[in-house]
Amino acid sequence: MEQTIQTNEILTPTEFLKNWQGHRALTRKVIEAFPEKELFEFSIGNMRTFAELTKELLSIAVPGLKEIVTDMTIAYDEQHPELNTKTALLQAWDKATEQINIYYPQITKENFRKVNNLFGQYNFPVIDNLFYFVENEIHHRGQGYVYLRALGIEPPFFWDRNR
Amino acid sequence: MEQTIQTNEILTPTEFLKNWQGHRALTRKVIEAFPEKELFEFSIGNMRTFAELTKELLSIAVPGLKEIVTDMTIAYDEQHPELNTKTALLQAWDKATEQINIYYPQITKENFRKVNNLFGQYNFPVIDNLFYFVENEIHHRGQGYVYLRALGIEPPFFWDRNR
Repeated sequence: MEQTIQTNEILTPTEFLKNWQGHRALTRKVIEAFPEKELFEFSIGNMRTFAELTKELLSIAVPGLKEIVTDMTIAYDEQHPELNTKTALLQAWDKATEQINIYYPQITKENFRKVNNLFGQYNFPVIDNLFYFVENEIHHRGQGYVYLRALGIEPPFFWDRNR
Repeated sequence: MEQTIQTNEILTPTEFLKNWQGHRALTRKVIEAFPEKELFEFSIGNMRTFAELTKELLSIAVPGLKEIVTDMTIAYDEQHPELNTKTALLQAWDKATEQINIYYPQITKENFRKVNNLFGQYNFPVIDNLFYFVENEIHHRGQGYVYLRALGIEPPFFWDRNR
């Protein structure tokens, strides 16, 4: 663990959270932009639907954070058969937004570099896993943009991170 | 500018660069995975081809860094008509990899939070613009994954960041 004295940081824990929640606000707009039927049925090249991709994101963020702050191992589960309407997905998304704001601040400054075997499978420093959460969301959301364009629907602007 | 004493940082400048270059190594694999013709001709829903998206990424990374370290304003230009073969695109990508490794370390620790009007248009702290570079690349690369799947081609693993 790095313990040198720094005069400044390029990224604080609070800034990381703000960026993450900004991305989550944009992903919410992408979910909203899908018609209900296409959200659950449309895909390209045998990929998952955007509802399935959204369930993956929901299965990572809050369960991952809970594991990081409690130090318990949580099994990864992306089934969530109850999330079978657009309204249910958006409600789950909003609940996750609140829970992230509760759990994330419980990560102590010292713990960001602690190695954590996430979901019993991904043995990396906490900060690496957190970046993976955000980057994986950007990756799948970019795929959602192609689905929307293929459906003739204009996606939100990439830089629009306001709720 | 933050000048408080910290005992540790969640992300160092060197770690940011390593993550960025890891993503660029993956994007290179995505460029390579396209057949030459489809790289320049295939798209979905009237979007840009992956060659055009790659040119956008090339137009941002090194020119953006040059602007940040020299404090000159550089006009944004993503035309690059000379990059009209897969080999030319990959060579430009590799040249950018080297140039990023030269320019990025010239950003002083104090300058990461300095506001810079990137390309005369994006007036944000340097670190915000740098995150935008990486996140925009992940976004467009995710779109490339859909193109590849639509073409029946298996993309590289998202977590494979080795050169």
